[in-house]
Amino acid sequence: MYLSFDLGGTNIKAGLIDDMGNIIKKCSLPTAKSKAVEDIVRQFALLSNTILKETKIHKKYIKGIGAGIPGNVDSEKGIVFKAPNLGWVNVNIKEWLERTFDQPVFIANDANAAALGEMWKGAGKGLDNLICVTLGTGVGAGVIVDGRVHNGSYGAAGEIGHFKVRVKSTRKCNCGQFGCLETEGSASALVYYGIKAVDDGEKTSLAEIIKDKGELTAEDITQAAYNGDEVATKILENAAYYLGFALANIYTVVAPQRIIIGGGLSNAGEMLLNPIKNWFNKFVYIDIIDSEIISVASLGNDAGIVGLAKLVAEHKC
Amino acid sequence: MYLSFDLGGTNIKAGLIDDMGNIIKKCSLPTAKSKAVEDIVRQFALLSNTILKETKIHKKYIKGIGAGIPGNVDSEKGIVFKAPNLGWVNVNIKEWLERTFDQPVFIANDANAAALGEMWKGAGKGLDNLICVTLGTGVGAGVIVDGRVHNGSYGAAGEIGHFKVRVKSTRKCNCGQFGCLETEGSASALVYYGIKAVDDGEKTSLAEIIKDKGELTAEDITQAAYNGDEVATKILENAAYYLGFALANIYTVVAPQRIIIGGGLSNAGEMLLNPIKNWFNKFVYIDIIDSEIISVASLGNDAGIVGLAKLVAEHKC
Repeated sequence: MYLSFDLGGTNIKAGLIDDMGNIIKKCSLPTAKSKAVEDIVRQFALLSNTILKETKIHKKYIKGIGAGIPGNVDSEKGIVFKAPNLGWVNVNIKEWLERTFDQPVFIANDANAAALGEMWKGAGKGLDNLICVTLGTGVGAGVIVDGRVHNGSYGAAGEIGHFKVRVKSTRKCNCGQFGCLETEGSASALVYYGIKAVDDGEKTSLAEIIKDKGELTAEDITQAAYNGDEVATKILENAAYYLGFALANIYTVVAPQRIIIGGGLSNAGEMLLNPIKNWFNKFVYIDIIDSEIISVASLGNDAGIVGLAKLVAEHKC
Repeated sequence: MYLSFDLGGTNIKAGLIDDMGNIIKKCSLPTAKSKAVEDIVRQFALLSNTILKETKIHKKYIKGIGAGIPGNVDSEKGIVFKAPNLGWVNVNIKEWLERTFDQPVFIANDANAAALGEMWKGAGKGLDNLICVTLGTGVGAGVIVDGRVHNGSYGAAGEIGHFKVRVKSTRKCNCGQFGCLETEGSASALVYYGIKAVDDGEKTSLAEIIKDKGELTAEDITQAAYNGDEVATKILENAAYYLGFALANIYTVVAPQRIIIGGGLSNAGEMLLNPIKNWFNKFVYIDIIDSEIISVASLGNDAGIVGLAKLVAEHKC
């Protein structure tokens, strides 16, 4: 069995996965506000204890640890070059985790982990050229070429959150640049535009939500759109436009058999996915592509932890 | 030895290449105006006869034929799905060539052929993750992942000429869409903007050239830019802006170790390459990349014929 930790800007998901990719047990915690390495490693240990205690499985049955990181990683050395949403630069997370768990540790970019999971057990089963896009706090992608994760130089392959879609934007991305896809097509982008609409005095049910809850989430906006709120619908469509544009351009580079959309925001369903598909079809070069080219991830939030087990399994074999 | 044919929208280059990648003999012809398959196959035969006659090498020493096509191909089946600059759709070029030459034939997208050539004997020697961009009549790229050409679904990987860089453009690309990189960053784009500037009455030495020669080439524009013509310089800078923008975004997808710029337009030298590098650096996400990331192809126009020999050699081994 394998222990997987999928570290996101908002939550840490942990899972105990068997050799066949089945999830024995999973649990999660909100990511420590400090985002400090020591705090996050402590959270990993806490999650591990909870899982092992609840499943009554002894530590000796764990063959390895897989950790998914939202940033550029050197999978071989276990180093995180840069993780903007955590504020990490050159962190040797493998060393931290090996010290804590006394187990072999393998790390991957979180989106690569999700892509491996979807290829192993999810929407990419049977395919060997695919892109798995994770829409969450940030936007990332795992690129699979000929059945293998393509890490690229400096682990930067699939960093499509920083694909520039709106060069004249004056809103800074976490990476320090402007016009990144992440500032238009992520859950945080939806929230930004939702709050902005309310601040600008637009007529929308989102104002009520902020007043009631004191905050706004991407789910609130999606729900409002399904309830017919025009402002919320426009916010989803803006995100879909930039996602469709970027994905069509990404298609010209690697031409995957399938583009799998996962991450929390993929739960927004058809009101986000249909306009993404429409814009993708409008912008994509080739007209002979499969109508199923854009599919929703089927493992949902579990893709990462399943893929991380696959990563450990591959290295241990 | 191998016979290679690199088919472009403007010229056909042919070469006789040995096992080590050395060019024994090469020659070229302007591509038949009709672009009809039968005419082009006849041109291939003519080039082959010329080469074999001049080198006095007997046909029996040729182990195979490699053909590079400017479009989406199925390398396995030898079919050209779509080659906009030739007007070809679903052409079984392998069959045509096998009938003509009575030799095993292997086909590749022209940009993939050039990428293989640069990896084998040129600017990508020793690397295994690279992109080789061909700037000619059109814009294409060969994507090499882990030492192998990545064809992608429908052979569409690397079709970056149709990466959308200017969605509001009203000028149609050969592919039928708008805002493609090819309409801004190719030799034909330079010529379009050169003629437009003259038609618009801008003060430029290009007017003189058109008056004298009755036509304008990308080389004329480059030369004018080096001679200090401001309009010509602006035209090169426009191309460089869109190329830098697209390449920085392409980097987020595959993160190559090197981006090699080849094709006729790469002869424009620093006046095109420096602004490409500047815009690439402005837009690229990651700040730890090699300063040599963008390099000029070192095989020049020979990359395709050398790479096609590599393609045949790999299949014949």
